[in-house]
Parts: sequence; structure tokens; C-alpha cells
Amino acid sequence: MGDDAEMLKLVQSANIACGFHAGDPLVMRTTVAAALTAGVSLGAHPAYPDLQGFGRRALECSAGEVEAFVLYQLGALDGFARAHGSRVTHVKPHGALSNAACRDQNLAAAIARATKAYDPKLILLAPALSALAAAGQSENLATALEIYADRTCEDDGQLTPRGQQGAVIHAPDQCLAHVQKMLAAGGLVARSGKILPTPIHSICVHGDAPEAVSTAGALNAWLAQAFTLAPLPLLFA
Amino acid sequence: MGDDAEMLKLVQSANIACGFHAGDPLVMRTTVAAALTAGVSLGAHPAYPDLQGFGRRALECSAGEVEAFVLYQLGALDGFARAHGSRVTHVKPHGALSNAACRDQNLAAAIARATKAYDPKLILLAPALSALAAAGQSENLATALEIYADRTCEDDGQLTPRGQQGAVIHAPDQCLAHVQKMLAAGGLVARSGKILPTPIHSICVHGDAPEAVSTAGALNAWLAQAFTLAPLPLLFA
Amino acid sequence: MGDDAEMLKLVQSANIACGFHAGDPLVMRTTVAAALTAGVSLGAHPAYPDLQGFGRRALECSAGEVEAFVLYQLGALDGFARAHGSRVTHVKPHGALSNAACRDQNLAAAIARATKAYDPKLILLAPALSALAAAGQSENLATALEIYADRTCEDDGQLTPRGQQGAVIHAPDQCLAHVQKMLAAGGLVARSGKILPTPIHSICVHGDAPEAVSTAGALNAWLAQAFTLAPLPLLFA
Amino acid sequence: MGDDAEMLKLVQSANIACGFHAGDPLVMRTTVAAALTAGVSLGAHPAYPDLQGFGRRALECSAGEVEAFVLYQLGALDGFARAHGSRVTHVKPHGALSNAACRDQNLAAAIARATKAYDPKLILLAPALSALAAAGQSENLATALEIYADRTCEDDGQLTPRGQQGAVIHAPDQCLAHVQKMLAAGGLVARSGKILPTPIHSICVHGDAPEAVSTAGALNAWLAQAFTLAPLPLLFA
Repeated sequence: MGDDAEMLKLVQSANIACGFHAGDPLVMRTTVAAALTAGVSLGAHPAYPDLQGFGRRALECSAGEVEAFVLYQLGALDGFARAHGSRVTHVKPHGALSNAACRDQNLAAAIARATKAYDPKLILLAPALSALAAAGQSENLATALEIYADRTCEDDGQLTPRGQQGAVIHAPDQCLAHVQKMLAAGGLVARSGKILPTPIHSICVHGDAPEAVSTAGALNAWLAQAFTLAPLPLLFA
Repeated sequence: MGDDAEMLKLVQSANIACGFHAGDPLVMRTTVAAALTAGVSLGAHPAYPDLQGFGRRALECSAGEVEAFVLYQLGALDGFARAHGSRVTHVKPHGALSNAACRDQNLAAAIARATKAYDPKLILLAPALSALAAAGQSENLATALEIYADRTCEDDGQLTPRGQQGAVIHAPDQCLAHVQKMLAAGGLVARSGKILPTPIHSICVHGDAPEAVSTAGALNAWLAQAFTLAPLPLLFA
Repeated sequence: MGDDAEMLKLVQSANIACGFHAGDPLVMRTTVAAALTAGVSLGAHPAYPDLQGFGRRALECSAGEVEAFVLYQLGALDGFARAHGSRVTHVKPHGALSNAACRDQNLAAAIARATKAYDPKLILLAPALSALAAAGQSENLATALEIYADRTCEDDGQLTPRGQQGAVIHAPDQCLAHVQKMLAAGGLVARSGKILPTPIHSICVHGDAPEAVSTAGALNAWLAQAFTLAPLPLLFA
Repeated sequence: MGDDAEMLKLVQSANIACGFHAGDPLVMRTTVAAALTAGVSLGAHPAYPDLQGFGRRALECSAGEVEAFVLYQLGALDGFARAHGSRVTHVKPHGALSNAACRDQNLAAAIARATKAYDPKLILLAPALSALAAAGQSENLATALEIYADRTCEDDGQLTPRGQQGAVIHAPDQCLAHVQKMLAAGGLVARSGKILPTPIHSICVHGDAPEAVSTAGALNAWLAQAFTLAPLPLLFA
């Protein structure tokens, strides 16, 4: 999905699909190798088991199932990282699993627990102000707080559901403006204009969108002037 | 498939399905926990991606695909082992993938390479006298040589194909007799009676067979009198 | 799952998994052939695409997705029926898909629409008093109303969720008593004792339960004395 | 995969993936509707169950498995056709399954048998001079003989394996020239130049190739001058 090679030139950290919503062993190995060549840090992007729906459909699972899904996918991706003399350094849930964990404390705790059980030095990358971020902090995981360049949010800080009009921002210049507004405000800026103050460590661009490379390019060009950009492990070193 | 709980009381090392031919994240986590409780060492049992066929149908794959399949499945299982404070200690390919790697040097080398790339201390568990065993030795991996209690072999040392009459030995006492004959002969004993001398480190019983627990019980009772049985890592410590 | 051969001797109509929650082409063909030999009528048992979870986990899908799932699975099963000179004669959704369609009118309508679009003479087999039954009647489909021998229900007529204590009735004699009580009352009898009057055309026993054959046997023995049992198509002929 | 909407404007008959190597219920429904709108006849394109490998990896299956695969996929696609008031009118195996059936009489017979069992009026679309074409004729199926615009063949009439240099013809003008040569010769023209005489009913362009629309456009423009192009059912009416 998308032009991974170009994206890897424009980001510092990558969230790599682990075979449950996208990716397969060959694709994962190629992507890991390309990310390492590009100096991009490796993140596991675990999802519900739903290739058909690209992991974007909610699946009613127990916390135990979610914990097992994360361990499986994290280990699988780390297999490729280890084979290349490297390591996965962060975990960021994908799609409907992330959405569920942003609202549901039990699922959020399951993901934080799995991450810590695998390796307590892993960084949890979570949407700012989410239940998932709280769970990471509660487990004493290094927790990176993320905003979305290409998605709007509601007054409670949750992403506007994809089905809703305007939930996805397509134009690269609008994505840039959206990010600039949030960095200037020092927090999320909801669709209503409401500001939700939060530290911000990471900006997400969805790599499967057709405009992804343009958006990442515009962001990168602007951000590089104002900030020193770094892979997540350097941020939390 | 089969009565895993009973089997774990009777074996020293387990080959655990990694989701490609059987198993899923919840089953894997439960099995890893049960094996550790029972003092059984953990082996990854990677297979072709074929749940429908239980991994017993040959799939024409490149060496690169096979290498990626093994890394993915090995990492995934090791995720659960690490979460339980342990590690996978051996790798043993399953079904049609194992059969292919017993004959095809390129596939055998791919499996040995993936195993070593993940962790050079891993043990490769391979059928005695197979191309896979040779590949493990050639990569300087600790290579455990295995015979089958419940399968016959041909004069070239390869397993009699499952489709063929008599390929699978069902009766527990016949399995025991088959093993006794091979241990006495110091090698494989083919259907023709031909002896193929080889060291023997491990005896395999297929856990999905209905007679698996009886066969493992009969073997365990007899072997325990004559040998000190140990998990694979102790054998190669 | 379960002893299909024995079950087919004890029922008049079978709901056959279509590969999404269980079953695969070979299993489906064998089951269709066995059902036809036993004089059992053929029902498609469409489910969410979730082999791992046996179709028992809710998956958030649009009505369009559900409509397409039903058409796919119904057609697939009918392929085997046609190859044996027969036809699928009813449709009954499985597991979490059925539960969703019993409450959600949009999903219920999607299932009824798909059934009718495939063949307006098909019977829709739906839990009595459910939104699915209403949707079938609203589409003028022959709609068979079903009660469960091995499941309890709540005061609103919906099945007690499986996760809840007592939701599943295991003992065959208790299943029989449960059915007898409902037939005597002329309606569903909820856990509270509340009676919900409804016609009853069909009694469901889950074939994957370990007690399935015993329960079906007990029911069959008692029912055969009091009623003339018939496959669904004869009921609506 | 590929630009299906554009392709449907340029062809008379479509081979539609049935979920085993590509496609899913929603995609299939959309494609069926689009094909019917475009006046394109519907063909089932059954494959080995291998989404990961796009059905292009050989899978060792029995004739019984292959027969069941075809019935399942044919029925599934026909479900959508029936729901749109139409019918699947031909069957054409995909990828590695087609390659196997072009050489192996048992697999070819299994496919012809499944096709006939579903509906003896179905057309079997098979590579000219293949075992599959022979099996179709032997079962008295209307058998359409096909050549490939974008693939070369060997002296025995079999496709040059994809792994081999030059097996795939990418440039649209070269595809056109390849077709013109075969139509002029009245048969397959192998890479060596050898001519294998055969009737020709259909020309295949792979819709997943990046040049597919250009190639189909070039072919369509040239063919329309010299021939009356028609969907397969009209050809065999």
C-alpha cells in the first residue's frame, strides 16, 4: 500500500504492518531492510486480524486476545529486525485496534502490558490524550505522544471516525496547516476549534493515502526548518 | 489439534505451531505457558502459510520466501517466550516445508540462514541424514538429529510420503518397536530393512495423531529406563 | 468441529459452515454429500470472515459488506449442492453475525435482501422474535422461526451472551427440558421465566458442542413421539 | 489490482477473481455490477487458496481438492451474478492452478468435471493446445481456446514460466505484434518461432499488469477493424 520507498526518505520512524491488516513476511523483510538503510527507526504496527478490511473494522476481542495479538506481531517484526542486526524500538497499534485502545482502558492496558512484557525499553507511540497513552505511562513505558497530520479530532481528543465527512484531510497544504495550528497551540485542535493542551512527540502521516508522499514532503520541509527531527529512540534516549 | 496438555507431560521439547499451519496467538501463548510450567523446551515449528491444508501441501516458494516465513514465525513465537521470561531454543520446520527442506539444499540453506540470523545459539532440529541437517551443520548451528516414532522412511532416508500405504505407524507398540530397532541399529531403519547409520538426538511423535499420548507414554516409559532424557538445550549445553 | 456424521442422522435440516468461520471446500462438499444421503435439507450458514474466532466475535461491518458476505457464502455452498443435483433451501446466519442481525434492523435487512436476491424461494431461518425474523417477513421470504435447545435467552428474546454464566446449556436432559418448556408455553421462556409467545418451526442444537449428538438424540427421541418432523422445505411447501 | 473500470470498457469477457488469490465479497459484487453495466460477460477465475502469493505459487493438491476449489469459487461468484439477474457464463482457472491444469490431465479433468457439474452449459476458457482444453472437450463442454497477448510460450505450447527472462511481454505494441503474428499464423507462435496450429477464440490480457489498459486498448483498436468482437456466450450460442 502506498510508496513506501519514498515515504522512508521523509520520516524518522516507521510503523510497519505485521501481517494482520497488511504486509506479509517478504514485504516486512524488505521494508525493515529499507527502513534501516534510510536510518528510520522501526515500529511494530499491530492490528486486528483483518486483511480484508485493512484492520479498519472493529473486532470484539477480549483483553487477553489483544495482548496475544500484540505479542505475536511485535515478535514477528522483531524477527526481521534481529536478522538485520537491529531491533524494533516502538509499538503503535493500527486502525480499529488503536481506536478501541484510545477509549477502552482494558484494551489499552493489554497493549501496554504486552509491550512491556516483550521488552520494557520499548517506546509506546500513542495518540496524545488517549487511554492508550495513559496506559503506557501507567506501565512506566516511554510513551511518545502523537498527533495526526491527515486526520481531524473531536472535542474529547478522539479521532473523527473515518466514515464521517471531513475526517480525513487529503490536501498536503491543509495537512501542514493543521499541524502548524496544533504545534502553535501546544495541543490538539479539535474540529470545533477547541484546544486540548498536550506535549507532542510525533506527527503521523498515513502511508497508504495517495497524497502521503506529498504531505510528508511538505511537513518535512517545514519542520526541518524549525525543529531537529529525530527517530523516536533518540527522543527518549 | 490433539491433547497438548497430556503431551507436555511426556516430552522434553515441544515444536509449537506458529499460526501458519495451526495455532493462533491465544493458543500459542497458552501452549508456551504450559510448556514452561512442564519444564519443556520451546521450539518454533514454522510451516508454509496453509491453515486449510495443515501445512502438509507443498507450496512452490523461493528460498527468499522461505527465509522470511521462518523469521516471521520464529519471531512471533519468541514474542510469547520472551513475555514469559524465556526464549525459543530450537527451530524445527513442519510438514511439507520440512519435507522440501530435507531434499532441496537451497530451501534447507534458507531455513538454516534464517535460524542463524535470528540467533546463532538456536538449535536446528532436523531429520537425521537430511539436506536440512547438513545445512544446519554447514552454518555451524547446533544441529539435533531426529528420528520419527510414527513414520517410516525409505532407503534414501526420506520419510515415506503420507499418501502411501504404511507411511504412518498408528499403534503405540509398533511405534515403540520402530524406535527400539533404530536405536539398536544406531541409525535409520528403512522400510526395506536397510540401515542408515546416524547419531540420534531426538525422537518425534506427531501431537495431532489420535494415538499421540499413548505413543508418547509408551516411549517415555521405555526410554526413561535406558536413557537420561533432557530438553534439547541441555543436550547441546 | 463435532461429529457431523452422527448429527446428520438426528436432524432434518443442517446449517453448513461456508468457509468464513469454519469449513473449507473439501469439508463442505463432503458435508453436502452426507446431508443429501441422510435426507437432510441444506442451509447456508454464513458468518463474519473470522476463522480464528469461529465467527463468534462481532466485526463492525456495513450493511453492504454483510450483504456481500451472505451472497458469497450462499453461492459457494450452493455450488456444491448444484453439483450434487440439489439446492440450498435455507439461510441461517451464524454466531456474531446472527446476534448482530437479531438486534440491528439494517444488518437484518441486508441479510434478507441478499437471500431474496439470490433466490426468492429460499427460506430464512431466524431466531423467533428477532429483527432478522422481522426482516425476512418484511421481504416476503418464507421465514422459519427457531428456538435454541442449548442456549438461554433474556426477557427481550435475545440470546444470553456466551460470555455470561449459564448462557449455554450443556446437559442433554436440561436441553430437552428447556425445549419442552418452550413448546408447552407456546413461546420463548426467558431465564427469568418470562414467556414470549411465538410460533416455533425449528429447534437448533449447536453441532460443535461436545454434547451435541446426545442432545440431538434426546430431542429427536422425544419429538418424534409428539410431532412429525420434517426438513424445512416440506414445512413451507 | 489494476484499473478494472478501464479494462471493462475494452474487453468482451472478464475473468473475475473469486477471493482465493484476489478479490473479496465487496470487490466481487462491485466488479460483477460494473461488468454487467459494460456488457461484459462474466467468468469465474478460480485459483489456489493463496492470497499472499496472488495464486501464482504451485500448491500440491489432489484432484478432489481442486474440484472442490472450483465449485466453491464458481458458486460464490455466481451468487453475485444471480443477485444481479445474470449468470456466470464461463470458467477460466488462474495462475498456478491454470499452469498445473495445462500439463496435468487429472487436475484438468477435475476442473472440467466441476464446471460441468455446476452447469453443463458453462464455457471452459482454456489455453489453446493445453491439457485443460482437451479435458473440456472430453467432457463435451463448450471450450474456448485462448492465446496470451502478454506472455510467450514454449515449443510444447506451455507458457514460459514467469520467473524466466522474457516470459512477460510488457510493451503494448509488442503485445499487439505478438497477437498479430499468432492470428496470421493460425496458431501459437513459440519463442523459437515454431508454429503450433490451433483455432483461437479469445485473447487474454492480464488486468493486474501496469500496462494492461494500454495493451487492451491497442488490441481492441486493431481487432475491431478486422473482426467482430463478442462476449464468449455469443461465440458459442
